[in-house]
Amino acid sequence: MTKQERAVRTRYQLIAAAADVFNRNGFVRTNLAAVSRRANVSTGALYFHFERKEELAAAVVNQAVGSIRSAVQRVHHSPACALQRLVDATHAIAALLRTDSVVKAGVLLNQEGYGPRPDLRLEWHTHIQRLLAEAEREDMLAPDVSQQSAASAITASTVGFEVLGRDDLQWLSRHALTSFWGFHLPALAAGPALGRLDAAGTDIGSAHR
Amino acid sequence: MTKQERAVRTRYQLIAAAADVFNRNGFVRTNLAAVSRRANVSTGALYFHFERKEELAAAVVNQAVGSIRSAVQRVHHSPACALQRLVDATHAIAALLRTDSVVKAGVLLNQEGYGPRPDLRLEWHTHIQRLLAEAEREDMLAPDVSQQSAASAITASTVGFEVLGRDDLQWLSRHALTSFWGFHLPALAAGPALGRLDAAGTDIGSAHR
Repeated sequence: MTKQERAVRTRYQLIAAAADVFNRNGFVRTNLAAVSRRANVSTGALYFHFERKEELAAAVVNQAVGSIRSAVQRVHHSPACALQRLVDATHAIAALLRTDSVVKAGVLLNQEGYGPRPDLRLEWHTHIQRLLAEAEREDMLAPDVSQQSAASAITASTVGFEVLGRDDLQWLSRHALTSFWGFHLPALAAGPALGRLDAAGTDIGSAHR
Repeated sequence: MTKQERAVRTRYQLIAAAADVFNRNGFVRTNLAAVSRRANVSTGALYFHFERKEELAAAVVNQAVGSIRSAVQRVHHSPACALQRLVDATHAIAALLRTDSVVKAGVLLNQEGYGPRPDLRLEWHTHIQRLLAEAEREDMLAPDVSQQSAASAITASTVGFEVLGRDDLQWLSRHALTSFWGFHLPALAAGPALGRLDAAGTDIGSAHR
């Protein structure tokens, strides 16, 4: 392994360890010594990569943002219609929040002000608005739906699922999201479109087929 | 003013000051000296009422819980039907979150583990489930609605509005909630019931008529 490969690996270990410690203790109560112990990396090596805790938090957020954007992009390039891609994207993000501790820590840290601004939730809101506009062009939206109201309601709900899921993973289960879309889709989708949509997600573009 | 009245007033001042400092700095970065300064109360008097920061946080949460429960109870005893009382309760809570800094701080602190367990969000979920069951008995629910799915979706959405509203008060505006219910009610309410419901809230039971 070259020196550069080792540095990349160490950096990755530090980010993964930091996510675990942030998830357990929160940002303020996390100290860098605990992260270096957990990563099994010397404090010297840690300080080589991250001089301050804020930099480590930003790195966790950036990796989380990267994972979420990749998952959403995979779904976005699937051949499904816009509404199905919206459903699939929520399932993909929930799967990441359930299984990837960097994503879990990164989303919380981002809400607390670390990493890219404006935060992920705004980006998600914009993505939902675009998918609903695309669904409208595909003639998939129920005629009386306000795209603005629907986008806000779906943004708020999904933020709520993430927040509730921090204390109780049930909220992020495939069952919970399927039930959510089972309730929402009949209001959102035009009658003929409804039968073609799968509230449980199509798994197209999923990293966990 | 008797000694006891003074003590009650001082306690109230401390809770209000603590809420402001918690809202600005978060729990971990708040120190009791800043609270006593803001309340214009000696540190001796502060320690007479609250020996530890956790006790102060619990007092903020308890006062917030009291305010929210009172508002929800006022709505609950209004003559409106169950679905309208659900809409009205969300407007009443949003108004408190917009205007009452103790409620704002208390809800966040409660999510972070201070004050009564299980937390307010579970109590709110249960309240929504009861109102939907009542709406079913009143023949106000659309025939194909799953009460369980609807209750979870509404719980998640309203938690999301609260969380998003911390950074941007627009999410807690009457307009935002009216738009939310305008989107949800057609899916939730039986056809004939829909015309009798006001997504903007009826103001019955509101403390801010």
